[in-house]
Amino acid sequence: MSAPFIHPINVTWGDCDPARIAYTARLPYFALDAINAWWEAHFDGEGWFQMEIDRNVGTPFVRMELNFQSPVTPRHTLMCETFPTKLGTKSITFAVNASQDGVLCFEGSFTCVFTIADKFKSQPAPDYMRHVIEPLIRDA
Amino acid sequence: MSAPFIHPINVTWGDCDPARIAYTARLPYFALDAINAWWEAHFDGEGWFQMEIDRNVGTPFVRMELNFQSPVTPRHTLMCETFPTKLGTKSITFAVNASQDGVLCFEGSFTCVFTIADKFKSQPAPDYMRHVIEPLIRDA
Amino acid sequence: MSAPFIHPINVTWGDCDPARIAYTARLPYFALDAINAWWEAHFDGEGWFQMEIDRNVGTPFVRMELNFQSPVTPRHTLMCETFPTKLGTKSITFAVNASQDGVLCFEGSFTCVFTIADKFKSQPAPDYMRHVIEPLIRDA
Amino acid sequence: MSAPFIHPINVTWGDCDPARIAYTARLPYFALDAINAWWEAHFDGEGWFQMEIDRNVGTPFVRMELNFQSPVTPRHTLMCETFPTKLGTKSITFAVNASQDGVLCFEGSFTCVFTIADKFKSQPAPDYMRHVIEPLIRDA
Repeated sequence: MSAPFIHPINVTWGDCDPARIAYTARLPYFALDAINAWWEAHFDGEGWFQMEIDRNVGTPFVRMELNFQSPVTPRHTLMCETFPTKLGTKSITFAVNASQDGVLCFEGSFTCVFTIADKFKSQPAPDYMRHVIEPLIRDA
Repeated sequence: MSAPFIHPINVTWGDCDPARIAYTARLPYFALDAINAWWEAHFDGEGWFQMEIDRNVGTPFVRMELNFQSPVTPRHTLMCETFPTKLGTKSITFAVNASQDGVLCFEGSFTCVFTIADKFKSQPAPDYMRHVIEPLIRDA
Repeated sequence: MSAPFIHPINVTWGDCDPARIAYTARLPYFALDAINAWWEAHFDGEGWFQMEIDRNVGTPFVRMELNFQSPVTPRHTLMCETFPTKLGTKSITFAVNASQDGVLCFEGSFTCVFTIADKFKSQPAPDYMRHVIEPLIRDA
Repeated sequence: MSAPFIHPINVTWGDCDPARIAYTARLPYFALDAINAWWEAHFDGEGWFQMEIDRNVGTPFVRMELNFQSPVTPRHTLMCETFPTKLGTKSITFAVNASQDGVLCFEGSFTCVFTIADKFKSQPAPDYMRHVIEPLIRDA
């Protein structure tokens, strides 16, 4: 069993709104940063940029869902635990559970489909990805 | 019956990623811009800023859910139809259905709670808001 | 003599930081939005996206300079007066003077070079652009 | 003599525009992230958020100036060397020199004034800051 993948985010002044907490629309950004970092960590540094440009594999999002439990602030690092919860033939779903100082701030679920990038056409998950992803799947 | 409220967004180069479509994390931003514009349109120009600072009413988000159907590009204005779908005692849910050139790009559902802003404590929807909101509620 | 081109920006809650004013790093964004809008207004709706994708003309920035005089807030529309101040053989400089309620908030100067987009190689300003731009040049 | 302070930034897909390079308006964001990180590194983790909220010291920007030499991409970490170049009675100027893989991408100069945050009124640089900053000043 592998250790959980946690992407740390340094939340700052510029992420906050006048309520002194991170602006709501920044939180999906943080979650996507965590998912991109998950790809980089498990595929030799290749995130969405390299996947698309070098490998012609796209993973556009078809759905996202977030529940916000507690405000995100610059007081603590935002720890984004990120892992795949499902791998379909042509799609993948990720969970991102983000917490600060041990308190859950938000949890999200994000579903992407695999595409041939330059044709924007769906394709099955490439085998080289499937081999890496499958052992990492767990329940949200 | 009132005309639908539609918030137009001029999508540009800077919103797009290397796939030449708006970056996924920009779409919740657009949706929140549309919801803020809905408040401004129905409350004499008062959006979240004025609600929080001048009226001490906050409406933090507790949930968002988006389904992405078709890519968003700079080729057409993004028309964000925005309306309340539910008004609870202490919460409100909005639908944002965004389309370009008659094609649905994404649809989202967003739930906020009403708070006493400077105490970050929940409160019932203020009456002056309830009177305006109730007649505008419709099914998503 | 033509009327000044002014790009209006609706500054909102999400643009502001905990000091209740627009976050400094948002201001170059606003200025670039205004410059892109200037291109759209003077070239039949063609902004950077269409220039690059449809015409293979890029205009990457080589320099920007901004002086901030007064905070930007959601209280008033940000009026961004935008115009070219210089057209060199291969470069163009824009001024963006942004004000709210008649008060100058910031003024900026932005220099771009013309490129053959798919080669990322500099080129002279295309003639069809030069004809439109030249009469609009004025001092900052 | 102290080692240079370098703030690393992981540039990603979402930072890039259709030209496959970081969007110009993201670069001042990166520079401000680096300056905030400089404060955090030299003042026990206190960045703009803590300075403003906990110490009532603001440092709003009055000027920024950037020259862009080479495109920023997700291929390499963006190394932002950041240091003060001048400390006036009531102002501070920072240099941010950002490079990737040993190539200078942009260099910027940023001037801030010290304020009593809750009064938005200028003040001299607080002594506890001056002591730390002065030895670190060097030429851009």
